[in-house]
Amino acid sequence: MDEFSLIDVFCRSIRHQRDDVVLGIGDDAACLTIPNNHQLLVSCDTLVSGVHFLPEWDAYNIATKALMVNLSDIAAMAGIPAWVTLALTLQNIDQAWLQRFTLGLADGLKRYNVALIGGDTTRGALSMTLTVHGLVPSGRAVKRSGAKVGDRIYVSGYLGAAAKALSVLQNNESTSTADYAALMQYLHYPTPRVDLAVILQQYATSCIDLSDGLSSDLAHICKESALGACINQLEIPIHPLSQLELALHGGDDYELCFTINPANEEKFLQELARLNLVCYPIGRMELQSGLRVRNINGDVVPLRACGYNHFN
Amino acid sequence: MDEFSLIDVFCRSIRHQRDDVVLGIGDDAACLTIPNNHQLLVSCDTLVSGVHFLPEWDAYNIATKALMVNLSDIAAMAGIPAWVTLALTLQNIDQAWLQRFTLGLADGLKRYNVALIGGDTTRGALSMTLTVHGLVPSGRAVKRSGAKVGDRIYVSGYLGAAAKALSVLQNNESTSTADYAALMQYLHYPTPRVDLAVILQQYATSCIDLSDGLSSDLAHICKESALGACINQLEIPIHPLSQLELALHGGDDYELCFTINPANEEKFLQELARLNLVCYPIGRMELQSGLRVRNINGDVVPLRACGYNHFN
Repeated sequence: MDEFSLIDVFCRSIRHQRDDVVLGIGDDAACLTIPNNHQLLVSCDTLVSGVHFLPEWDAYNIATKALMVNLSDIAAMAGIPAWVTLALTLQNIDQAWLQRFTLGLADGLKRYNVALIGGDTTRGALSMTLTVHGLVPSGRAVKRSGAKVGDRIYVSGYLGAAAKALSVLQNNESTSTADYAALMQYLHYPTPRVDLAVILQQYATSCIDLSDGLSSDLAHICKESALGACINQLEIPIHPLSQLELALHGGDDYELCFTINPANEEKFLQELARLNLVCYPIGRMELQSGLRVRNINGDVVPLRACGYNHFN
Repeated sequence: MDEFSLIDVFCRSIRHQRDDVVLGIGDDAACLTIPNNHQLLVSCDTLVSGVHFLPEWDAYNIATKALMVNLSDIAAMAGIPAWVTLALTLQNIDQAWLQRFTLGLADGLKRYNVALIGGDTTRGALSMTLTVHGLVPSGRAVKRSGAKVGDRIYVSGYLGAAAKALSVLQNNESTSTADYAALMQYLHYPTPRVDLAVILQQYATSCIDLSDGLSSDLAHICKESALGACINQLEIPIHPLSQLELALHGGDDYELCFTINPANEEKFLQELARLNLVCYPIGRMELQSGLRVRNINGDVVPLRACGYNHFN
């Protein structure tokens, strides 16, 4: 099978379309209509076999993860994802693998109303780069740099489950079948928090998605906002199957961490409740730089930012 | 050096900015303003070491090539390139390599007024995926599918030089020093024909860039336009250092191949002359499907589309 036929196989099976796609896959470039008074958000992430996923994983899960991780970056700007390009590098053509991969991608695209608008397939070590595009009302993108002293720090869900899943896989830790299934779900199907975008556009002063881990990612908000942060150990929503260390430093959760001006907190919580969403306050932004944690004894101690990092 | 520092090195040295970049590298996604009455063009291409370039090439040339190849896809839609994301996968961190790569990228971005708006660096076999974004007045993108019977087929420059360069490299063919330098220039620094965009927006009925080779790429226009084509061997602008076969089937020239309604041809040529540009008519679109070439004896014979193709 040649490269063109391979791309055709993809195109045929991934049918999710959007009205704003004037021209999709199959020309030199895609052509897209941007709605009035909106800005474009763009983010790209590469997943490399053996680094971001294991080659023996179900290709359905690999595709899902690659997509969700990218959609999460758009959610972290309070945007709504719209289109994605996929650059797929394959060692060889394995029809069964490709079928699972395509199915995972197609399901994810449909679920989040995202259109695949372009791609490239090349031969080489297995990896994929997705570039995802989202839309946000002009001026409403939420940056990492907007947090103010006193802003309440929130996270959008339980933390540590993906890191626990990875630990179970890597160390052959024994778990019940039900726990194993639940953990793998978190690792393979992270949920980009697109559902929060409209609320964040209105209320969040800063936002980041938790890919490297809470400590690392909150440190980015601190650095970009030129502030520090103190979080309360007792408020951290540790996943019931995980533990504190993994919730603090484990990556891959893809929940959002964001800040809210306390003056708007009540309205923010009302909006959340109206949409049946739950977020967790975990601390406050402070003038003093660096990360701190108030432990169970009530003592405030420094917290080291140490998330996952390639090239270490 | 960790991943974050590596990205910082890039950001610091690539300074080319544009007013429409509200938020560039350094957040979860870039944020961009789209001018009124314009559509967005998006294309992505991966270059893999050993497939699209050789690992021993100067990293400056690798970066240049990766960028130009992508800009060419925007030019092929009659768009003006604006922003690019870079996903770079490296086996290891070689500061000297990275410096040359960054310099090549920075020079290319500046030359075409393109801003680097995002990226990802990962560890793995050397490869890079660029996703390039361009702008085109709404409704003015030129597709592969718009050619009509009788349209004149044009190419934007000499053909076969890049393929000849590759042949010289791969087969250790002997050439003069001056010819060698000239050929390598074509291979390493393809020129995306962005200069033609404004004219093509107005006059071209279809367009494609010559990445796989004239026969392969013209076959795409034929297929998408549901037509055939006949080209004249004597009209093909074979590069003086190349030969017919390479001009017909060799890839990597990145000239544009496009079609013009004969009723507009005079105005088109006047516009070209006004901008001091030259293009070459090489044949006509025909109702009968398939490619044909009128050879030097005046006989019309079938032309096989056989350009470069991964996974063969």
